[in-house]
Amino acid sequence: MIDQPIEQLIEYFRQLPGVGKKTAQRYAYYIIENNKEKAENFAKAILEVKNKIRLCKECGNYSSTEVCPLCQRRDKKTICVVQEPKDIVSLEKVKTFDGVYHILFGAINPLENKGPNDIRIKELLARVNAYGTEEVIMATNPNVEGDATAMYIAKILKPLGVKVTRLAQGISMGSDIEFADEVTLSRAISDRKEI
Amino acid sequence: MIDQPIEQLIEYFRQLPGVGKKTAQRYAYYIIENNKEKAENFAKAILEVKNKIRLCKECGNYSSTEVCPLCQRRDKKTICVVQEPKDIVSLEKVKTFDGVYHILFGAINPLENKGPNDIRIKELLARVNAYGTEEVIMATNPNVEGDATAMYIAKILKPLGVKVTRLAQGISMGSDIEFADEVTLSRAISDRKEI
Repeated sequence: MIDQPIEQLIEYFRQLPGVGKKTAQRYAYYIIENNKEKAENFAKAILEVKNKIRLCKECGNYSSTEVCPLCQRRDKKTICVVQEPKDIVSLEKVKTFDGVYHILFGAINPLENKGPNDIRIKELLARVNAYGTEEVIMATNPNVEGDATAMYIAKILKPLGVKVTRLAQGISMGSDIEFADEVTLSRAISDRKEI
Repeated sequence: MIDQPIEQLIEYFRQLPGVGKKTAQRYAYYIIENNKEKAENFAKAILEVKNKIRLCKECGNYSSTEVCPLCQRRDKKTICVVQEPKDIVSLEKVKTFDGVYHILFGAINPLENKGPNDIRIKELLARVNAYGTEEVIMATNPNVEGDATAMYIAKILKPLGVKVTRLAQGISMGSDIEFADEVTLSRAISDRKEI
């Protein structure tokens, strides 16, 4: 029999992705056992994120300013198109890309009734026109939906004289060919490069 | 480059036990992507726990009332002594124990300079005297510190005519003898029971 406020906090932790009852309990007890100021700041951080974060009106990424820092500073000659804000976090770690991003918030997916008008393609075209963008890198996920979306956007952009590229697909660095799945291997063979 | 409020929320999630950067990011994005009301209630639950939860003045468990529900309702003829509040959660799942608990908040540990006066032993004695408790079950952890603490308390309580017992130690149910560690196996052999 756990006390009501504790029970409730456990419930909220459980709603986080991948958190089971035991983990939620550990988190709740951590909050109880640690100092009050930290817990208050934690609660404030949750509220702040909900109050301050909106979508950057250019790229669509989460931002606390009307135009996000990346869109403010980076070169707009190249736009990297991704499905979700999380993808930007991963791509930014690489540090080789210095253009701006564009978030579609999804991919074309007929099974889920998601057509071209349900993702931010119109906004992408507007940006390409406004900036005079030279290259659009399609970094949608390497699956049927991501590929279809990349093809669709390429078909629209190419006639406008914009170069459209796609992230290379193949076997992962450091992995074993033995364990690579067939689709990946077949892609790696057909896209093989001369060395 | 992640926006400041998001970065901060990720930092707070990272402080939870066992949470790395990637997991903290997932949690933060979950908060951002889900509805505002839920996030506000989550923040409120954190504050509530810090504002309402104190230690039950009898057993020492976290409680929002001066005396916790367990101490209010349960039979005080038996007291089960544990090291931490979390232990009660596990023991309560079993549903075979209907007495009250007593939390020591630690165990005797000379290496960490923790003596008998640093854990709630005095409070235990006071309760045993006040209730006329018949049995004290030592459910401290099955390791050197837990065993030493159990022995120490037993030595004080036995002269008062209180029965002191210790949770059985041995191989876990459903485990393989092949994989049991030596200390556990040796304990299981010396504590073997006639069938």
